[in-house]
Amino acid sequence: MNKPIQAPSNATITRGNLPGSKKIYLGDLKVPFREVGLSGGEPPVRLYDPSGPYTDNDVQIDIAKGLPSVRRDWILARGDVEEYVGRERRPEDDGLRVGELLSVPQFNRSGIKPLRAKPGKHVTQLEYARSGIITKEMEYIAIRENLGRSALADGHSFGANIPREVTPEFVREEIARGRAIIPANINHPETEPMIIGRNFLTKINANIGNSIVTSGAAEEVEKLVWSIRWGGDTVMDLSTGRHIHTIREWIIRNSPVPIGTVPIYQALEKVGGIAEELTWDIYRDTLIEQCEQGVDYFTVHAGVRLAHIPLTAERVTGIVSRGGSILAKWCLAHHKENFLYTHFEEICELLGQYDVSFSLGDGLRPGATADANDAAQFAELDTLGELNKVAQKHNIQVMIEGPGHVPMHKIKENMDRQLAICDEAPFYTLGPLTTDVAPGYDHITSAIGAAMIGWFGTAMLCYVTPKEHLGLPDRDDVKAGVISYRIAAHAADLAKGHPAARIWDDAISKARFEFRWRDQFALAMDPETAEAYHDETLPADGAKVAHFCSMCGPKFCSMKISQEVRDAARGANDTLSSEQIRAAMAKKSDEFRDHGSEIYLPKSAAE
Amino acid sequence: MNKPIQAPSNATITRGNLPGSKKIYLGDLKVPFREVGLSGGEPPVRLYDPSGPYTDNDVQIDIAKGLPSVRRDWILARGDVEEYVGRERRPEDDGLRVGELLSVPQFNRSGIKPLRAKPGKHVTQLEYARSGIITKEMEYIAIRENLGRSALADGHSFGANIPREVTPEFVREEIARGRAIIPANINHPETEPMIIGRNFLTKINANIGNSIVTSGAAEEVEKLVWSIRWGGDTVMDLSTGRHIHTIREWIIRNSPVPIGTVPIYQALEKVGGIAEELTWDIYRDTLIEQCEQGVDYFTVHAGVRLAHIPLTAERVTGIVSRGGSILAKWCLAHHKENFLYTHFEEICELLGQYDVSFSLGDGLRPGATADANDAAQFAELDTLGELNKVAQKHNIQVMIEGPGHVPMHKIKENMDRQLAICDEAPFYTLGPLTTDVAPGYDHITSAIGAAMIGWFGTAMLCYVTPKEHLGLPDRDDVKAGVISYRIAAHAADLAKGHPAARIWDDAISKARFEFRWRDQFALAMDPETAEAYHDETLPADGAKVAHFCSMCGPKFCSMKISQEVRDAARGANDTLSSEQIRAAMAKKSDEFRDHGSEIYLPKSAAE
Repeated sequence: MNKPIQAPSNATITRGNLPGSKKIYLGDLKVPFREVGLSGGEPPVRLYDPSGPYTDNDVQIDIAKGLPSVRRDWILARGDVEEYVGRERRPEDDGLRVGELLSVPQFNRSGIKPLRAKPGKHVTQLEYARSGIITKEMEYIAIRENLGRSALADGHSFGANIPREVTPEFVREEIARGRAIIPANINHPETEPMIIGRNFLTKINANIGNSIVTSGAAEEVEKLVWSIRWGGDTVMDLSTGRHIHTIREWIIRNSPVPIGTVPIYQALEKVGGIAEELTWDIYRDTLIEQCEQGVDYFTVHAGVRLAHIPLTAERVTGIVSRGGSILAKWCLAHHKENFLYTHFEEICELLGQYDVSFSLGDGLRPGATADANDAAQFAELDTLGELNKVAQKHNIQVMIEGPGHVPMHKIKENMDRQLAICDEAPFYTLGPLTTDVAPGYDHITSAIGAAMIGWFGTAMLCYVTPKEHLGLPDRDDVKAGVISYRIAAHAADLAKGHPAARIWDDAISKARFEFRWRDQFALAMDPETAEAYHDETLPADGAKVAHFCSMCGPKFCSMKISQEVRDAARGANDTLSSEQIRAAMAKKSDEFRDHGSEIYLPKSAAE
Repeated sequence: MNKPIQAPSNATITRGNLPGSKKIYLGDLKVPFREVGLSGGEPPVRLYDPSGPYTDNDVQIDIAKGLPSVRRDWILARGDVEEYVGRERRPEDDGLRVGELLSVPQFNRSGIKPLRAKPGKHVTQLEYARSGIITKEMEYIAIRENLGRSALADGHSFGANIPREVTPEFVREEIARGRAIIPANINHPETEPMIIGRNFLTKINANIGNSIVTSGAAEEVEKLVWSIRWGGDTVMDLSTGRHIHTIREWIIRNSPVPIGTVPIYQALEKVGGIAEELTWDIYRDTLIEQCEQGVDYFTVHAGVRLAHIPLTAERVTGIVSRGGSILAKWCLAHHKENFLYTHFEEICELLGQYDVSFSLGDGLRPGATADANDAAQFAELDTLGELNKVAQKHNIQVMIEGPGHVPMHKIKENMDRQLAICDEAPFYTLGPLTTDVAPGYDHITSAIGAAMIGWFGTAMLCYVTPKEHLGLPDRDDVKAGVISYRIAAHAADLAKGHPAARIWDDAISKARFEFRWRDQFALAMDPETAEAYHDETLPADGAKVAHFCSMCGPKFCSMKISQEVRDAARGANDTLSSEQIRAAMAKKSDEFRDHGSEIYLPKSAAE
């Protein structure tokens, strides 16, 4: 294992704007957006942008140095934290034997020590919110969530309360209410603050993680950069195996989005993969290690109680959560209550010192549509509701994880129960997959369920890639998963009536109708693919201004014909009522024929 | 244009079973199914199969001869049709000038003359159903729709009435009620009968069509074969340009599924693409031409009335249906009512002689989420409801086309209105796309809407490919579109509580949990992709029996751990109650640890 360690290269990191977009920053807090400039006198469209400095052509990136700190000054200015000498990295943190050397380079933290709360303090955004304090993070988020939302939108929000304008005070209230969280470990000051809650834009999470064949540092950072480039709002590092600690350090130092983990994975590595040998001490030590590194939220499967396990006995697919099955095994082997449940208040105490948020894991989520909404799943949900109350008592931010595999007719019950039992704490679901029969396409089976549950009120959707159930996703799979989930999240925002969501749809549809092809590509969720698909059959530059595409050809383009119809109907006056237009149409009918059918009439000529 | 005409080659036609499946035929009527044989003592799973003889390894295919006739004897035995000398093919049918030669070969019909109803008769399945006659087609469909539906399923069907067992009499009743149709032109006896209605399995349609660059006959037949291989239940030939007539003949003679067309496209070619020059006579002649060839359903945009056109004036994207925009232009140019509307009863009279079904087109469907559910769309729907009543009076089978671009919160209103206004005639929707912002991924934006509206009651879903809005789909796009829509349709059936739908999900989930990898691949909607994705990281044969995949690796496979948990919990007795299992678990706890955590215990060893 003592291969020479290579310095990480920046060459493999994907850089630059999406085609047709540029990065802009608003306000004193320099809140980033993707701005799409349009032709035809149309105003630019401002889009939410989690991709960080990597998509800013003007920023130098050096992953060996990490990203600049956005939040450190804000954190220090609050006066409630202190530097201290953190825990030393140990060989077992990276799955190594004593004396064995790392085969990936260590990130050089240049002497920056970890922060934690001063004794007796909790430094969570929830603590601040309940004290009436509006933090910089909340101000930043208010700007970030607004986009261009002066527009009116309609929708049906199932009781969500989406304001016309997001104010810092609204952000504070939602946090204080426990209805939204800002995952923001004080040891991850590189994050651009973001919020997860049903009264904000629907967010998505992408999972990355090294495989058994250890990846290099730059390779893992690139996985992160790639995920957020296409729209991942948070990233979970689900690494197992060797070099977990060191790889995670590289990821966090280079991440502008919150990083989540499942600490039981690393704890299990420390006991050689033998679930029965897990102990509270080893788990607690792992939490501290990760709190000091800057992990922003932990999946904690404290709801997998001993008494719930037999409820899975008649299931088609038993327990399908990795963490859930590990803990079930531990419970069973010791015939004891889950140690995460029995030590839950101690975990709260620890997380409060760093502002790490809970993602209360659904270890008993259904892994087959047949198992959806069963006794095991809902027994666990009841426990999560109980644990949410405990965490809220300690002012720890909480989100609740949800399924899984759920047929469409059982999706809404999941949301309704979660809202009631967990007091509207943000729901964070994996899909759900609406059928089991299409391995290879589970980004689609699950995007259906994700869009629906997002509409019903889920705050963050955990992506599923085409490789789900089959193998490790590659770069293309990650992109397919992220885009599918951006679609689901945006469709949900649109259906909820989010005021900013409609602007984007209307802008691209207008560009489409007016044959502004370049605007249409630039406004696309994935501009590269949209343009490449168009160019497969019409690559010439001239086709970018043509009033048709190869799908229907020039004679059969409905939009082209429809424009001719409209121009003829409108005549000279744009302010006519429908009745008047109808009258004008009759008059215009001969005139219209004279123009001939094959010539597109630009508005200026028709008016 | 006088290139030598090549005889069509069978070499380009995709043949053979999907991996792990075989074609079986049930009953005297030889109703085809895809049967997946399983290991581990599991019973085989029987799946609906629209792919025709092409997936039967034992059948010889020669596209120059066409498929064998399934229905001709049935049709003749009814004694109500006669052969006659049909209309001669004319050069303009193929978009040629007089004297210009075809550059694709003609299909040799070897003297078979077209059939039509004897004078004064209507030969529609609706006519028979209302006369109390159960046709062979209805018997065939009853067997086809049943699959293995003895299983109990739950679901929420929004008032649909899905029986535990489909009987021929049930099929007849649904047809008689106008709630389902069997598209089955008497001149397309090659069809394997299928039914479209909300109380049957949800169907999907795939579109094909030659492009400006004329395709060869074999190439067009292969597009058909490829579409139905992956699950297309009907195929629409949307060809424009040259050789429409001849290519369509090749398609119909080789199609085991109903073929739909939009006759106005060909009529427009006959008038050189100038909408204003369309006449009822040219259109009627085109209908006769296509009735004689064997087209099974016609999209007829008779609902685009003159008075509706001004309602589109304020839309973001105007009129986006090709047929709709052509007719709007005609109406406007002449300032006359749509001739399809004014001649509607004559069309009914004609279609009744061949049993061609109506697909009443939604020429004013929304092309942007902003335009969904607007006055233009619903005005047209009201007209379609009125036309449905007219067609029902003539005993002509009808389905109703629907949108389009619709955000999630406006989807259900479409279904509810359609059911009420069109008296439950089958709804046939294009998607709907739930957002406009993701060109390149509209198979996904629309699969979300399609799954939902399918659940609500839509009988057939028209696919959308990744190239929608951008260009002509290629082979991969067609497959992506078909699979996305098979997912949507199956997710809908599952949510409606279709008794046969759950069997498939449960079989694949059980295979997954038991690490029967080959069974999982064979049961997949797309076995080739599932296996290929798995093999990217674990290609060895041994991995096909491994109790993990590369996604989580052996130590972290939840299904593996969960099986160990279950085996431990169950102990020796499979009939224990949950309470007893819990008790047994405590007892088993030491025993369990002794087995060690890394060894998978086969059931025989644990029991």
